[in-house]
Amino acid sequence: MSGPVGTPGDVTTVACVGAGVIGGGWAAHFLARGYAVRAWDPGDGAAERLSRLVEAAWPALTELGLADGASPERLTATPTLAEAVEGAGFVQESAPESLPLKRTLLADIDAATPQGVVIASSTSGFPMTDMQTEASTPGRLVVGHPFNPPYLIPLVEVVGGQRTEPWAVEWASEFYRRVGKSVITMDRELPGFIANRLQEALWREALHMVANGEATVEQIDTAITDGPGLRWPVHGPCLTFHLAGGEGGMAHMLDHFGPSLQAPWTRLEAPELTRALRDDMVAGCASEAAGRTFAELVAERDRGVIAVQRALRPPAGDEDAGTAGEHGA
Amino acid sequence: MSGPVGTPGDVTTVACVGAGVIGGGWAAHFLARGYAVRAWDPGDGAAERLSRLVEAAWPALTELGLADGASPERLTATPTLAEAVEGAGFVQESAPESLPLKRTLLADIDAATPQGVVIASSTSGFPMTDMQTEASTPGRLVVGHPFNPPYLIPLVEVVGGQRTEPWAVEWASEFYRRVGKSVITMDRELPGFIANRLQEALWREALHMVANGEATVEQIDTAITDGPGLRWPVHGPCLTFHLAGGEGGMAHMLDHFGPSLQAPWTRLEAPELTRALRDDMVAGCASEAAGRTFAELVAERDRGVIAVQRALRPPAGDEDAGTAGEHGA
Repeated sequence: MSGPVGTPGDVTTVACVGAGVIGGGWAAHFLARGYAVRAWDPGDGAAERLSRLVEAAWPALTELGLADGASPERLTATPTLAEAVEGAGFVQESAPESLPLKRTLLADIDAATPQGVVIASSTSGFPMTDMQTEASTPGRLVVGHPFNPPYLIPLVEVVGGQRTEPWAVEWASEFYRRVGKSVITMDRELPGFIANRLQEALWREALHMVANGEATVEQIDTAITDGPGLRWPVHGPCLTFHLAGGEGGMAHMLDHFGPSLQAPWTRLEAPELTRALRDDMVAGCASEAAGRTFAELVAERDRGVIAVQRALRPPAGDEDAGTAGEHGA
Repeated sequence: MSGPVGTPGDVTTVACVGAGVIGGGWAAHFLARGYAVRAWDPGDGAAERLSRLVEAAWPALTELGLADGASPERLTATPTLAEAVEGAGFVQESAPESLPLKRTLLADIDAATPQGVVIASSTSGFPMTDMQTEASTPGRLVVGHPFNPPYLIPLVEVVGGQRTEPWAVEWASEFYRRVGKSVITMDRELPGFIANRLQEALWREALHMVANGEATVEQIDTAITDGPGLRWPVHGPCLTFHLAGGEGGMAHMLDHFGPSLQAPWTRLEAPELTRALRDDMVAGCASEAAGRTFAELVAERDRGVIAVQRALRPPAGDEDAGTAGEHGA
């Protein structure tokens, strides 16, 4: 079989293999979007843990708005893998992060799942090429990397391995969009994908600082929550620095702060700021700004940061604080 | 003179030296908090640019709430440095990021400013030890590093140089808190301080990815705004990973994902995960959690992420979307 058994719109049942924090979070997300979910996890007490996870997530999902017919009652914990994937139109694997385990498990899932059904792995960083080695039909195996908790954070990174067929990557991307995800479809394998490479660089610098007594855990968290972290849900790091350049944008920012790139501000060495890299960054920001002027982007950032701050930290005694989002968003 | 001329509560006038994006942002912040601001910048058209910056920021500041008597009319652009610092109870320097320039300018500001008045530099990363070399009374010179825009992002990192007197660091920290800032007072100099080291590590990884054609500018920004960036205004990177560990918290997270630290997920090498570092991270998270249980932290994160999402991206047609913050905060 060299293609999907149906379209993403045909799916009514999703199988979740592995029911830890991530697998349980996926189950909650699919349930909230109105799917039946069949879950299997070989661990002791997995069914009870899964119920607790879904129960804990449900108030948040209700707040966000449930799909028609969505119910935690549509969750079935099955005693075997075969029963979980039976009748599933999509399989999400979220087992512990161990390469030998993923290899064997994905081969088992592949053997048990009807042909043409896409199987996605929640792996945090293994390339699918390394995980699909034991599977009989590796063409329908993709990475679908979520962020914790999968029922709230929209991002999913989708990428195939060398033996993955292109239709599976496209099908998974479309399916995730259909269930409300923000999808980045990567055209090549990269350890850690994109978002984990970015947050891992930050995380390693944080660990170095704690290891050297340069900052405490609490100072590191405050530095982010009260600093750059307030901008990042509004504009990503590139557009943020585009605005830091003032009206000259990313071009001025790179030309002015270029020398700081060589400063020992982090333990990560910077790439050489070639003309080509500078021009790519400038062109990328122009493309992303999509015609919004500097003043418009500044106003957008200001409205966004204010909305975030008022949503998270309403002034004491201001009972209408929550309505700031209305004006500020 | 070995101490301050007055308390932070005595200040009524602030001098802003340098009126670019950062200096202008500081001026807007101090004006909104009810201070008179005297600003000097030797550049062509600086006074007009400063007026535009304050004007652009004022709607956001009005939305956040102005102090009694706050008015953009209380801004005076002066033709000389001496006139700017005359009568000021605090001086904020925000000149371009050049070490020779900062050295000379801080010496000039020091010479013109009455004794006992604290002078803070907005430098993005130079240690004060390297900047205070030419000043006659370096004891009152501190770093007060803000984030763009200074009128919205609360974080200020305060640290002295080798010749800075401890009272000046304490005085500046107290003054910034008084004007509504979230202050991290560092006990040692570190290039890039704390927040810039963290975001610079992320930024360098992003530049490497663009330079190698591994990701586009837009993919990098989406990876943050729709992924980890949604969590970071709620919980910083340490508490975020504390929750990624499930009920086992940071201890389980480090024990389980410890091996990924050695994976090539970023170009930044990880520190050795010694027992001491592991224990410091675990203890730091426990201290920061301050008695909040895993379930309470998860609920807090979920409410926070939902509040952020609804504030920034209200569902189409949902006119009450902005009130989500009220329930979610």
